[in-house]
Amino acid sequence: MPDAILVLNAGSSSVKYAVYRREDDGTLEVRLRGQVEGLGGAARLHVDDLDGAVTTRELGAGADHDAALAAVLEAVHAHLGDLTLVGVGHRVVHGGQVHSAPVVIDEAVLDALHRLEPLAPLHQPHNLAAVEAVGRVAPDLPQVACFDTAFHRTQPAVAQRFALPRAYEQRGVLRYGFHGLSYEFIAARLPEYDPDAANGCTVVAHLGAGASLCALDQGRSVATTMGFTALDGLPMGQRCGNIDPGVILYLLQQEGMTPAEIERLLYRESGLLGVSGVSADMRVLLDSDDPAAAEAIDLFCHRALREIGGLAAVLGGLDAVVFTAGIGEHAAPVRQRILEGLGWLGLELDDAANAADGPRITTPGSAVNAWVIPTDEERVIAAHAARLVP
Amino acid sequence: MPDAILVLNAGSSSVKYAVYRREDDGTLEVRLRGQVEGLGGAARLHVDDLDGAVTTRELGAGADHDAALAAVLEAVHAHLGDLTLVGVGHRVVHGGQVHSAPVVIDEAVLDALHRLEPLAPLHQPHNLAAVEAVGRVAPDLPQVACFDTAFHRTQPAVAQRFALPRAYEQRGVLRYGFHGLSYEFIAARLPEYDPDAANGCTVVAHLGAGASLCALDQGRSVATTMGFTALDGLPMGQRCGNIDPGVILYLLQQEGMTPAEIERLLYRESGLLGVSGVSADMRVLLDSDDPAAAEAIDLFCHRALREIGGLAAVLGGLDAVVFTAGIGEHAAPVRQRILEGLGWLGLELDDAANAADGPRITTPGSAVNAWVIPTDEERVIAAHAARLVP
Repeated sequence: MPDAILVLNAGSSSVKYAVYRREDDGTLEVRLRGQVEGLGGAARLHVDDLDGAVTTRELGAGADHDAALAAVLEAVHAHLGDLTLVGVGHRVVHGGQVHSAPVVIDEAVLDALHRLEPLAPLHQPHNLAAVEAVGRVAPDLPQVACFDTAFHRTQPAVAQRFALPRAYEQRGVLRYGFHGLSYEFIAARLPEYDPDAANGCTVVAHLGAGASLCALDQGRSVATTMGFTALDGLPMGQRCGNIDPGVILYLLQQEGMTPAEIERLLYRESGLLGVSGVSADMRVLLDSDDPAAAEAIDLFCHRALREIGGLAAVLGGLDAVVFTAGIGEHAAPVRQRILEGLGWLGLELDDAANAADGPRITTPGSAVNAWVIPTDEERVIAAHAARLVP
Repeated sequence: MPDAILVLNAGSSSVKYAVYRREDDGTLEVRLRGQVEGLGGAARLHVDDLDGAVTTRELGAGADHDAALAAVLEAVHAHLGDLTLVGVGHRVVHGGQVHSAPVVIDEAVLDALHRLEPLAPLHQPHNLAAVEAVGRVAPDLPQVACFDTAFHRTQPAVAQRFALPRAYEQRGVLRYGFHGLSYEFIAARLPEYDPDAANGCTVVAHLGAGASLCALDQGRSVATTMGFTALDGLPMGQRCGNIDPGVILYLLQQEGMTPAEIERLLYRESGLLGVSGVSADMRVLLDSDDPAAAEAIDLFCHRALREIGGLAAVLGGLDAVVFTAGIGEHAAPVRQRILEGLGWLGLELDDAANAADGPRITTPGSAVNAWVIPTDEERVIAAHAARLVP
């Protein structure tokens, strides 16, 4: 009887889920998808059976992760048909220094992951709340943790280190990097698109509401733009990205802001939203006539170009640039602006291919290739869970 | 009668000075040099007449900037001979958004510079204390402020902007950049060394106890690694350089550090000193057998390479890299390590020339040139003051 894998991505106010059918030959097919949103308030469960039937159910005020997961599992079981649910794969933001691969969750693993909560206080507790909620509702269902950080553990120490005293490093203040599940997906698919780049030097640009770059040397992460948290590197929808640490000291010491106010500023009010004053959504900015919207796009592209140059130098070359995630897959003008800055390396954009979202968006004679490859982090989680559950 | 210009660089605990003789043809020759050190404690005045006579005089406990400047002016006048002191040039760290060039200091200018103190609380008040001390001792002597930030005001807005809400930008939270007097010196000399690079794309690496890079497009600054403060960008002797803002939030919220403790950590205990645990001095690290010293050098070179790549991308090309300041002028192994990472751009190091500290340290066939050009910020200040005083 065919198996099913449940994929969960639990945040503070939402739980996204998907069900994959595992065929006997190991291939995976998504069969159901949805989310609970509004957790802690007027929570609702959305279910899309991918055959055109979309349903929504109110979960009532104040539903928590337990109530959400019970509702999700109920909906999943109602749609399983002849499938047997054999495991759950969780997106867990932080695997620390230890986890360079997904892991089956037992009590010791869960304890260790809880100890990483101070490193990712906005995400890790919610990821783990979902693990515990499933454990209470379905204690015998194997669960697997797939980490946003794991893919970057191949990086040399020099790329993971801040210029801080060693005591901080020993307490875990390191450049972990994130979006690892997306980079893992792209690294696995790249050989089909561009075997030379897969064996060479590639920069992957995961540009979504969160955005980062990863330098792949023969498919392995050697550097990335995100650091200790998901705040570093490129400017994002609402996040500042890389910023002078002196700015934080200034806000504390000269403007009298509290750490909580600064956290809110840097995570929620900055990035494309802060610079444009219009929206955190690149689509809205691209459609806007507001000069500040254009300036926000300018800044995003400028910083992406600069960071690509930095990663190319770390790689010691550049064979290809791969764009993925929402902006990367769909915002042709953004790709164009970034890639025009790489003309000095012999990159020649193919305007028509770029307008059509790829896959290859450079000319045949281009010295550096550029690609658009849709990412699928959920599928990576499903595949790891399918491989690891008994 | 020949004129003399006094150059002053006043910090919290020291005042460095030099006297330049201005010839009738406008050339400048340094005639006297020294410093007051230990201000606020057991202050001493050092005087070097550059003819072999070095004297030291105790200024007594608790000498302030007024006492220091009075002692400096006394020593200067004792050595002037037939020279007339016609003006003072000050190094002033911050010129804000307004000053893109040196300026003669009057009351309005001084007021405006005081208002920038919150942007550079560790330096600006001491720079201005020296201006005021000279004003009290010699009220008729014209004084000129030369800013570390001014040279970077040619940068496009996108390079000066953080991804923060506009209100912060309007309050002056911008990427000002520093070491501008050094970059100005190098930009002025570069045509003698490398006319093509002077008309093209050059990255200047000012690597000293403080360290930054500047991207020169036809001699004008278009981007730099330091931002709002001198804490950003490359790791330095004791400063962290670029660091995830999430690290600061973590230290505040999870480790309970105060802003003052974090300031001390990031400005005084990090960088080469923090990573090595050995020394903030590159010479000591290069001579050390401690693996942690080697790791600190690794990190310094890795980050410099990455930032050079980023600036090359912003420039849209790279014709030359110029090394200057203490490490840049004298640490051949550091230059070698950084430049070996640029082999993919066709840069070929000339090992013998590099070991001899240049000036040209790449082979004749190298696609990208690299140079060692000693900087002289003091002379830039002297020249501006000599030009601006009546």
